[in-house]
Amino acid sequence: MTITTPKGFKASGVTAGLKASGKPDMALVENTGPLQVAAGRFTGNRVKAAPVKWTQQVLTTGKLKAVILNSGGANACTGAQGFQNTHATAEKTAELLGCGAVEVAVCSTGLIGEQLPMDKLLPGVEAAAAALTADGGEQAAAAIMTTDTVAKNAVVRSPAGWSVGGIAKGAGMLAPGLATMLVVLTTDAVVDQPLADAALGTACRYSFDRLDSDGSMSTNDTVLLLASGASGGEADADEFISALTELCKDLAHQLLSDAEGSTKDVSITVSGAAVEDDAVEVARCVARDNLVKTALFGSDPNWGRILAAVGVSKAPFDADAVDVAVNGVWICKAGAAGEPRDLVDLKGREVKIDIQLHNGPASATIWTNDLSHDYVHENSAYST
Amino acid sequence: MTITTPKGFKASGVTAGLKASGKPDMALVENTGPLQVAAGRFTGNRVKAAPVKWTQQVLTTGKLKAVILNSGGANACTGAQGFQNTHATAEKTAELLGCGAVEVAVCSTGLIGEQLPMDKLLPGVEAAAAALTADGGEQAAAAIMTTDTVAKNAVVRSPAGWSVGGIAKGAGMLAPGLATMLVVLTTDAVVDQPLADAALGTACRYSFDRLDSDGSMSTNDTVLLLASGASGGEADADEFISALTELCKDLAHQLLSDAEGSTKDVSITVSGAAVEDDAVEVARCVARDNLVKTALFGSDPNWGRILAAVGVSKAPFDADAVDVAVNGVWICKAGAAGEPRDLVDLKGREVKIDIQLHNGPASATIWTNDLSHDYVHENSAYST
Repeated sequence: MTITTPKGFKASGVTAGLKASGKPDMALVENTGPLQVAAGRFTGNRVKAAPVKWTQQVLTTGKLKAVILNSGGANACTGAQGFQNTHATAEKTAELLGCGAVEVAVCSTGLIGEQLPMDKLLPGVEAAAAALTADGGEQAAAAIMTTDTVAKNAVVRSPAGWSVGGIAKGAGMLAPGLATMLVVLTTDAVVDQPLADAALGTACRYSFDRLDSDGSMSTNDTVLLLASGASGGEADADEFISALTELCKDLAHQLLSDAEGSTKDVSITVSGAAVEDDAVEVARCVARDNLVKTALFGSDPNWGRILAAVGVSKAPFDADAVDVAVNGVWICKAGAAGEPRDLVDLKGREVKIDIQLHNGPASATIWTNDLSHDYVHENSAYST
Repeated sequence: MTITTPKGFKASGVTAGLKASGKPDMALVENTGPLQVAAGRFTGNRVKAAPVKWTQQVLTTGKLKAVILNSGGANACTGAQGFQNTHATAEKTAELLGCGAVEVAVCSTGLIGEQLPMDKLLPGVEAAAAALTADGGEQAAAAIMTTDTVAKNAVVRSPAGWSVGGIAKGAGMLAPGLATMLVVLTTDAVVDQPLADAALGTACRYSFDRLDSDGSMSTNDTVLLLASGASGGEADADEFISALTELCKDLAHQLLSDAEGSTKDVSITVSGAAVEDDAVEVARCVARDNLVKTALFGSDPNWGRILAAVGVSKAPFDADAVDVAVNGVWICKAGAAGEPRDLVDLKGREVKIDIQLHNGPASATIWTNDLSHDYVHENSAYST
């Protein structure tokens, strides 16, 4: 149920010693073909880590043989030396796999601003290459974890015989234009590069791009899709897009449920917007509001704070028309108090907020978390 | 050292019983003339409380006789009944002061979404009118407090004989386009309405608009300036703007230092921007980043998170040129590690972050706070 479930892939996860904890910290994913189709999406942050710059470059060919990933260091804000280190990592991987460095993507995650210990990392690449197996996907998933408490794996199977699989790491800096995360997706469907690229764009738009855990956007976000064609089955375009979107939503929800210090998984659905972008903007304003997030942590259905957050958006709406429901109870109607707030049950982890703008046909959902003591604790102590 | 320091004003603060705590909750400020010049600035939130809608209306005349304020209830998201209650409050005040309701501004602060108890509030107006005195400014400042721990008063005196005074309440929802707050400013200088309005715009722009404690924008933000002309001294325009700006900066810093649950007062100065708006945008991105704010709570000079937050902005800059200093130590140079981070002393309450973009001549400073356990605690328990 991971990236080695689709045929035509090998993977591994090993310990190079980059993490103080001694846990696995390097992963390798190899596409054994026959196809080498690849597509990618990257952070919208304008401060991009060295591996992001490298991988964006090599992906211009639309082909990848392998992805080498490390946790224990983001290699972001590391200047020319950092880029050289990424290059050396790709070179080493290519040498071991018998391909060109330009066919190797690199992903890194961990603390920003520090150089990677290449004396440990390069032997780690050798170990990862030696450990490659046709069922190593879950080892790879474990090796890319940072503050994640569980590894994230998922698979969606097509009745047509092909499948799509994925691994992800997240935990903190989960925000828009891709949450903070590394994701590798594989498929044994026969797809051409334009379809792979379009499908990945759609899948990200309705999954990772709708995740906004803490509003902080990472320097390292990377989502890669590798297609081996090893099933021999050509994928119907619509079915492939649909399967990939389902896979990415599954992984996105796993990221949400494991976000640092969270106690609530919150979906915010805005309906009645003029256009979808307006609905996304309003939902994001609510998802990022610390007063809404702390109220949810306190299991307080404080619709006044929700309405105040809606009011910050630039989307058109009439403040005296807005309805708000929390877990199905419409506690705000026409911009004022509706049903009694003590009818709202907020004891569980799942929270559903519905906001009806009464201003058009469009809707969108953003997923977020609450803001808890543990979030503050984990993030005030991370680098020390 | 308050709003009754300038001549031509009376004020009071009394207990109407709106607060469960039994603390003072109604304030009245009367301009006894000879002038009745007034100007105002209001929340940028599109969900505006009833008193904001009322006061924006009456201020179109450019004149005010009085301001009646209550804590213990925001009268926001309260529909037509809420607006009628604001109107009734202004009518009652006008009746007692012998003026028209259109000469009375109304301000409210407290929980959103609940109707004010008018059976307590209207007798409170009577008590506030009866208690008006020429030295009642500090009572008024105390009566508008919500989760503020100290009352905020300030005065700036001109060598020309006039002065400007102010009171403020803040504590939570301190964000852009005015922090969350009520502010009443008074002056006995002789100023005409266009000067009063222009001076207030400039003063807000460089004080309250640069405060971004938690990114949450309130429904009730109001800043009012009343000019009595009672000193008889005509104010030089530049001197008046400068004095009013100094006064507002003083009050803004008092708000910052008393923000809910904060342990750090943080100034973020962005220099080397192409234009001032870019500098403001970059500084605001950093001020609102929860990962930066939790790191500051943990006294961790995590410049990587600062740079990641800079990268979210749309302002032009080169990521490989940015320098960052925390409390004077340039721990990030040219987008990578600079001086050792253990040289940074973060033990005190004051934190100074300098970000040099090397992209132009403009600069700006935003003031914010850290994100602490107490912020989460106070805001997860506020309405319950």
